[in-house]
Amino acid sequence: MEINSKRLHQRFYQMAEIGKTEKKGVSRLALTKEDRVGRELFIKWLKKLKLNIRVDDFGNIFARKEGSNPSLPPVVFGSHLDSVPNGGKFDGTLGVLAAVEVVETICENNIQHDFPLEIVMFTNEEGARYTQPMLGSGAITGVLQKEYVYQLKDDNGIAFIDALKEIGYLGNQENRVSKVKAFIELHIEQGPVLFDKGATIGIVKGIQGISWQKVTFAGQADHAGPTPMAQRKDAFVSAIKAMDKIHRWVSKLKDETSVTFGKCSVSPNVVNVVPGQVTFTVDLRHPNKKILNQRVDKVKEIILTIASHTETEEQIEEISFMEPVLFSERLVKEIENICDENGYSYHAMFSGAGHDAMYMNRLGETVMIFVPSVDGKSHCEEEESLWKDIYQGTDLLFQLVCKEIGAYSYDFK
Amino acid sequence: MEINSKRLHQRFYQMAEIGKTEKKGVSRLALTKEDRVGRELFIKWLKKLKLNIRVDDFGNIFARKEGSNPSLPPVVFGSHLDSVPNGGKFDGTLGVLAAVEVVETICENNIQHDFPLEIVMFTNEEGARYTQPMLGSGAITGVLQKEYVYQLKDDNGIAFIDALKEIGYLGNQENRVSKVKAFIELHIEQGPVLFDKGATIGIVKGIQGISWQKVTFAGQADHAGPTPMAQRKDAFVSAIKAMDKIHRWVSKLKDETSVTFGKCSVSPNVVNVVPGQVTFTVDLRHPNKKILNQRVDKVKEIILTIASHTETEEQIEEISFMEPVLFSERLVKEIENICDENGYSYHAMFSGAGHDAMYMNRLGETVMIFVPSVDGKSHCEEEESLWKDIYQGTDLLFQLVCKEIGAYSYDFK
Repeated sequence: MEINSKRLHQRFYQMAEIGKTEKKGVSRLALTKEDRVGRELFIKWLKKLKLNIRVDDFGNIFARKEGSNPSLPPVVFGSHLDSVPNGGKFDGTLGVLAAVEVVETICENNIQHDFPLEIVMFTNEEGARYTQPMLGSGAITGVLQKEYVYQLKDDNGIAFIDALKEIGYLGNQENRVSKVKAFIELHIEQGPVLFDKGATIGIVKGIQGISWQKVTFAGQADHAGPTPMAQRKDAFVSAIKAMDKIHRWVSKLKDETSVTFGKCSVSPNVVNVVPGQVTFTVDLRHPNKKILNQRVDKVKEIILTIASHTETEEQIEEISFMEPVLFSERLVKEIENICDENGYSYHAMFSGAGHDAMYMNRLGETVMIFVPSVDGKSHCEEEESLWKDIYQGTDLLFQLVCKEIGAYSYDFK
Repeated sequence: MEINSKRLHQRFYQMAEIGKTEKKGVSRLALTKEDRVGRELFIKWLKKLKLNIRVDDFGNIFARKEGSNPSLPPVVFGSHLDSVPNGGKFDGTLGVLAAVEVVETICENNIQHDFPLEIVMFTNEEGARYTQPMLGSGAITGVLQKEYVYQLKDDNGIAFIDALKEIGYLGNQENRVSKVKAFIELHIEQGPVLFDKGATIGIVKGIQGISWQKVTFAGQADHAGPTPMAQRKDAFVSAIKAMDKIHRWVSKLKDETSVTFGKCSVSPNVVNVVPGQVTFTVDLRHPNKKILNQRVDKVKEIILTIASHTETEEQIEEISFMEPVLFSERLVKEIENICDENGYSYHAMFSGAGHDAMYMNRLGETVMIFVPSVDGKSHCEEEESLWKDIYQGTDLLFQLVCKEIGAYSYDFK
């Protein structure tokens, strides 16, 4: 018994038509007409399977199939259908369509099970139109307040609640999911690790913690001509020295720590003026909260040392701190077993990016499955995954879901 | 016999009223109403001294006093009256007013001399309103073309030639100076060297050469989360490493080389995106052309090495190259002698910034005299020089001018 790879492939390219861009990516931003059309196609498939479809007060769509015991918590799996502008057709969509395929396989094989199963499609995961990412999952798990979400505005000043009504997907609060036996999300990796390793499956043990700091060095703007270098208080030189030292230190650690200096502004930003003020950001990541905090402390220490050596003044401001999320060790082990049984090559890893699973982890045992992204490209029209990997990923999802729902009449051999 | 310090002081504060700002600086931009009023005051003083006043085709003002032999080339001295917006009252003005004081002292003491003398006031030295600096001196020394200068526009689209006509200072080409026995410019240092050394006089041996390079590193923009550091092509890290290496190298040289990274732009400039492209400028200075070129070559070599190590692509573009100017060794020696005779503390140095003297050097032997700037501040309302230093600087100018014009009836003792 196995999933129908041809059917999955066909549905995938049917969905990829909706919001299709010139270079065969997709622009299907949350709560736009394209999103509505995508949701309608998705619901058409769900209806054929005779699933019980619910829409909650944030437009998240759930499709439920009862097991032998409706009082048990459901096994939930899925992802999102929205994209970034000129994004790829795999991101999010793959997880939703693989979930539909898994349930169709269960239905057509008449697989009996105890636990209810639910497919889910979350609203505005990308944070592209409404700038808060994982909005649908964040709202139902209590991370984001309803009033806050409803009043969020897009670039044209359209509130979330109005856009949600406009596409006809404002449902009821009682349709949310509140407790899950397991939440499972299949997603593309969005990075190069699996592709470079030649592994088919990424078993995601958790999501890295992220610390964002904004660092400012204030010195003194001076004429680049008459001011000797030894007498300057050059804010940019302080910033360069600090960033270089931090980067060298993290590179030597050779562990999961990563650091990125993504933004920088130099003032007054004139060729022949010694910069008087420089601001840059430090994005630090590590899967372990204690270690991440140690890393943050060390970065601060380096910045303070540089500031005292260069006679410039430093200011460090925390922009954001997202705690690491650890997924279910039991589910990670289950996936390893399935991979071993089927001969699927895998690599256990942490996700560097946020996903709906990060919040769903609050409602029950959670895990994610990654499939490789070709050359690590994502959020762009060139985004691609190989179909052999997608089939194995979907098959793995199928087997894991069957185990979790307590299916008692299937045989994969 | 000595200059009248009280008269110089009074005139200085009379001129400082014209374009005076709230914090007692001046805004007297070239060819504005304030510039016209300043010129009129200047000419009033010149007329009292019965000097022969000329205005050339760029609004440069010359005031001549004949010596015993009118066929000899003149000794020319002066500076400029225009300022930057919210600039200081000393920059430029000091050199013009000191020149008036020197000639008045010569007149009232009936000092006889062989060579003609000429006070000069140049148009638009600052390049603040018309963005080309040293515009008046550049035009009459053949560096800048007349058509180019006349058509230059300010931020309001007003052409130089129209602004010049508007204030009534469009003169004739034959009024330019074309050959000088000596050109001498007294100016504030605009940097901290003399003030920090406690020296009264800066003997300027020349003006440093300046190379401006624009450096671009192109790598690949990636998500800061899923992309491991070792697999990135981080353009900002390349730029940081290059700038740090260049800065360390120049700092170790401990010679007159200076380097400044004044401008930087990071793309896409988002906290959690690995920068795909970074551009920064390198301002390199040295008084010796050959050494400056060696420094430029070394900077390029460092950038190329970093690019190959970091797998990013580099591009280096020369924005500007201003050759160093060496002033007259004879005049430098004359100043040293006068300082020694009078017990004036001095420091021989190069100017890091451009001045009209840079171009006037093409017409004959040239030298500059600096007086200290308090805390090295200039081009700001806080700009200040101590009056004891100003008097000694003006006295030095007086003595040097007397020697150069072949005065034969003065005695400084």
